[in-house]
Order: sequence, then structure tokens, then C-alpha cells
Amino acid sequence: MENPITLQNVWDAKRRITPFSKRTPLIYSESLSGFTGKNVYLKLENLNTTNSFKIRGAANKILSLTEIEKLRGITTFSTGNFGFSVAYIAKKLGIRAVICISNRVPHAKVENLKNLSAEIKIVGDSQDDAERYSYQLEKEQGLTVIHPFDDAKVIAGQGTIGLETLEELPEVDTVLAGLSGGGLHSGLGVALKKTKPEIRLIGLSTANGAAMFESIKAGKPISVEEKDTLADSLLGGIGLQNKYTFQMVRKYVDDIQLLQEEEFKDGMMFMLKEHRMIIEGAAASGIGAILNKRVNLGTNMVIVVTGSSVDISVVLNLLKVL
Amino acid sequence: MENPITLQNVWDAKRRITPFSKRTPLIYSESLSGFTGKNVYLKLENLNTTNSFKIRGAANKILSLTEIEKLRGITTFSTGNFGFSVAYIAKKLGIRAVICISNRVPHAKVENLKNLSAEIKIVGDSQDDAERYSYQLEKEQGLTVIHPFDDAKVIAGQGTIGLETLEELPEVDTVLAGLSGGGLHSGLGVALKKTKPEIRLIGLSTANGAAMFESIKAGKPISVEEKDTLADSLLGGIGLQNKYTFQMVRKYVDDIQLLQEEEFKDGMMFMLKEHRMIIEGAAASGIGAILNKRVNLGTNMVIVVTGSSVDISVVLNLLKVL
Repeated sequence: MENPITLQNVWDAKRRITPFSKRTPLIYSESLSGFTGKNVYLKLENLNTTNSFKIRGAANKILSLTEIEKLRGITTFSTGNFGFSVAYIAKKLGIRAVICISNRVPHAKVENLKNLSAEIKIVGDSQDDAERYSYQLEKEQGLTVIHPFDDAKVIAGQGTIGLETLEELPEVDTVLAGLSGGGLHSGLGVALKKTKPEIRLIGLSTANGAAMFESIKAGKPISVEEKDTLADSLLGGIGLQNKYTFQMVRKYVDDIQLLQEEEFKDGMMFMLKEHRMIIEGAAASGIGAILNKRVNLGTNMVIVVTGSSVDISVVLNLLKVL
Repeated sequence: MENPITLQNVWDAKRRITPFSKRTPLIYSESLSGFTGKNVYLKLENLNTTNSFKIRGAANKILSLTEIEKLRGITTFSTGNFGFSVAYIAKKLGIRAVICISNRVPHAKVENLKNLSAEIKIVGDSQDDAERYSYQLEKEQGLTVIHPFDDAKVIAGQGTIGLETLEELPEVDTVLAGLSGGGLHSGLGVALKKTKPEIRLIGLSTANGAAMFESIKAGKPISVEEKDTLADSLLGGIGLQNKYTFQMVRKYVDDIQLLQEEEFKDGMMFMLKEHRMIIEGAAASGIGAILNKRVNLGTNMVIVVTGSSVDISVVLNLLKVL
């Protein structure tokens, strides 16, 4: 593994990203607490700038670039929310940004990118294709690739969620979040477990493409086949040359569960009815897992509600079949 | 008028209500700021305990009762959210509470009350009928009536929204919120204008029953005819023996606009699409007013998003006709 990421790196990130990401609300869920008989809190990253937690890692990385790098411009590849955060920050800072996405990325996310006047390249069928194109741009045009998860600065940025959680709820003993490339869980692992090692960190992936889970089972980063899922933000490989997140997730994550489509849906519908918020499938994974008794309960549990990027039409369709 | 409410009363309320109402999020709305060219923030009372700001006034009042009064029990009459907050607090504190509502109160609100195991009395067609029954219970059973708006403690409780806003955004110059009985605006008036007199406070009522507006025009509290509205939380008279809010709204509120049904709907749909939250019509009034250019803009504007109590079916119907 490359140089390890320290708790100090996460504190540095917390101060650095303040212009883009202030503390997000941590609300007590009466209904989930009632359902479980435990205290369940929701960390509302869907209310963060750009409507997802990805702003944290993107801000920490981009604000750490040299002035020369900023002048040359940046590029990223992303299933959507990370690309959106990069485009948002680039626009605010006046940096050129080229966002490479695959044609699997939902319509709503592409429209959001266009509204930010970002340069968008739609390349191929998978995140791998988009990734290759980003590195091609790096070679050809001198753009800096902003890796969406396997980067020390991005990981430290995502870890700031852990610091905010500990500050507001020091008695937290269990944290759940959707697991994909592992940037979020790597950052949470550093922030939470270096502060309070007994906290349980749980990863929730989609059964329709669980690259991190299968890689850990195989003992090394591998590719998996992907199918469409409500939790599209959880798709994407972890990279065969993974530098950080494979090791860190293996070290820090206590349990990984692969959720079915019905379970993401359960989480989304519960959030809509009980908390009147529309969130994307990936963001609903913690709620879906608890409703379907997929994880051991703690006494003071925090679910990271990671984002809200979902077409309204998807939600309407889910409501129809209720 | 009875004894005036002081800024100190609001600070006292802020500390008193902490067990029930923590600071709610104030988020920057990219989309409304883009639309107006000003800074527009949303104070998310829809995320407060019981999903509305009413918890603040109810908590301040009930926590101020004597032990004898708590033992005897309480009663209130309400278009819904206030009654729900009273029932919630009563349940947590183990106090008997009888909630009197009219049959105009929407289904979702009645169901929520039932879930709190409150005693519910559905009486007559208007808030006036419900109110009479509450005072009858006071006489017959010694219950203390918790007035939903025309009460010094309730007003001071609602005013805590103003203190939180000033603390987080001292440059605020304009505050918008739905105006009904006037408890919220009375409290906001004390908190905001005694701190910073130049702040503009704007009230938004429904054209389908604007009791406060018509009373101010008439120079005294009067009754008005009510019609169904998306902003049902804004219905209800101000009381012909009004003690506080009539005078305070007259003193503190700079502008009152009567919104049409389309304008409440615009606000609800905007919130759903841009911020992915379902809010009730009354809570969407500030957004609807800005979208329809009904108010003079400030530089740093705060819209109080007052609550989320609306049947999902209502939202689905609005979406269908888009």
C-alpha cells in the first residue's frame, strides 16, 4: 500500500473543505428507532452541496492541487455523483474539467452535469472505459486525473463524515453505508476506528455488481460483471491496480452484505414515507438493510444517506407498484 | 395586549426546548439563488422533530407548566401539526393529552396522531368548533388548554427559529414564512427585529382563508370564510379575543401576500425536483412566492420551510398534471 492515511489527514481535510462542505445534519429517526428498538440516526449527505457526500473527497483533492495543476485542468471518470462534484468545484474555482462517464449513467445525472457547463465525454459501457479515456486525456492534454475513490486526498475527504459523526454522537457504535469503490469506507475507517476502535463499520453493496466483496473473497482486486440496479452509484470496479481502498476496506470493514433490488427499494420507500425525502438506491442501502434484518444491530447506529441523484420517474414507478 | 414577549423570553425558550428541538439545518439553495441572483437559504423545519416547527412552541409551553398542571393533563385544538407536536411531547413526558381537531384536517395528519396513541376528538367543521370543545374540556376535566399560537410561551418557542437563523447567517435581511394564526411571525418578529430591526419579515397566507390579513385590514380580529387549499396548515381563524398575535403581526410583519393554489403547488414541485424533499403546501409558500415574483427580493433571504405533513397521494396527483 502507498503511504497510509492518518487521522491528522482527515482533520486537515475537514478544515480544507469547509468552503464547499459544511456540517450535514444528523437526525434521529423516530421510525427506524421504533422499528429496531435501538437509536438510529441518519447522516444526511443528500443535503450536502451537490446532493451527495462526494463533494467532500472532490473538494479535498482539488483544493490540494498546485496552481500549475489547476491551470492545466482536471479530468475524472465517475458513475455520476463524483463527476458532478468535480464539475461543481471546478466551475466555482474557474478550473477546466472534463468529466468522462459511461453510457450506463442515468439521465438525471447527465442533465445535472450539463447544467454545470462541464465538458462531458460519454465513453463506452463501463466505468473502465471512462477511466481509460481520462488517463488518455492526462497524457495528451496534461490534465490531472482526479480518481473518484482510490486517492489519499479523496479518502481523507470522505472521512470527514466520520469526524462530524463522532463530534455530534460520540456514543455511536455502528455505522452503515453503501460500499462501492471503497473511498467512503476507507475514510470512515480512519476517522472512526483510529478514534474509537470498537465502532463497527458495515458495507452494503449491490448483488448486481459487488466488485469489492468479490475482490476481498478472491484475495486481490478482480473485475465482476455488472447488471442494472437501483443502486447505480454502487456499480463500478475497484481497479486492478488498486492502491488504497482494497487494503483499507479489508482492514476496516467488519461486515459486507450484498443487497437485492427489493431491499434498496424498501429503503427508498421508507425514506419517502417516513422522512419525506427522495434518495437514490445506494443511499437507501442502510435503511433497506435494517428493515430486512441484514445486519446485527448496535445501540447507537448511524446510517450514511449518501445522495439523492435519482430520476423522479424512477420513484414514481416504484410508487405505482406499491 | 398582554405582557409583551421579550428577546430574553426567546433565549429562555431556546434552552428549554433543547431536549425536543435541536438546531435545524439552514441550507443554501443553489437553484433558488440561481433563479433570483440573490442568496436564498432554506431553514428546514420539515426535518425538526415531528416534521414541523410547531414542536418548538409546544415544547416551550408544556415544559413551562407546573407539576400540578402536568398531572391534570392538557388539551389543544389544531389544524394538525401543532396537535401532533403536543401529542408527541405529552407521550414522551407521560402527560395525558386530548387533541381536538376539525373534520377538515387531512387524513395523513389524523393517522400520525393515532400512531402517537393520543386521545383524539374530531369535532365540527372548523378550528373554532375544535377550540370550543377544548375549553369545554378545561372546564369539565381541569385540563390545561395549550393554545396553538396565541400564547406567550408558544410564540417565544417559535421565535427560536429566528435566533438560530441569526447565529448561522447574521447577514440575513429578509425572512419569508407561511402566515396563519401568527404565532410563528410573532416569535420571529421578536427574535429578528429586536436583534436587527432592518430585517424584512414577510407573511404568506392562502387566498382561500386569510384571517390575519383580513383582520389587519379591518383593524380588529374578524372571521373569514375558508375554502379547501393545498396549504391547509394556513387555515384557521386568529380568534376574536386575540391577545398577542394580531398586535404583534401588525407591528412586525412588513408585507403579507395572499397566494393562489398554483403558487403553493409551484413551491412544492420545485422543492421536490430541486431539493428532493416532499413538503406541505404551507411550507412551500416562500418558494412559491419567490418563483412567482410576489415579493421584493433581499440580498440574503431565508425561507422557513415549516413542515412536511402532506399525503403522498396529494403529491402524486400534482405530479400527474405536470
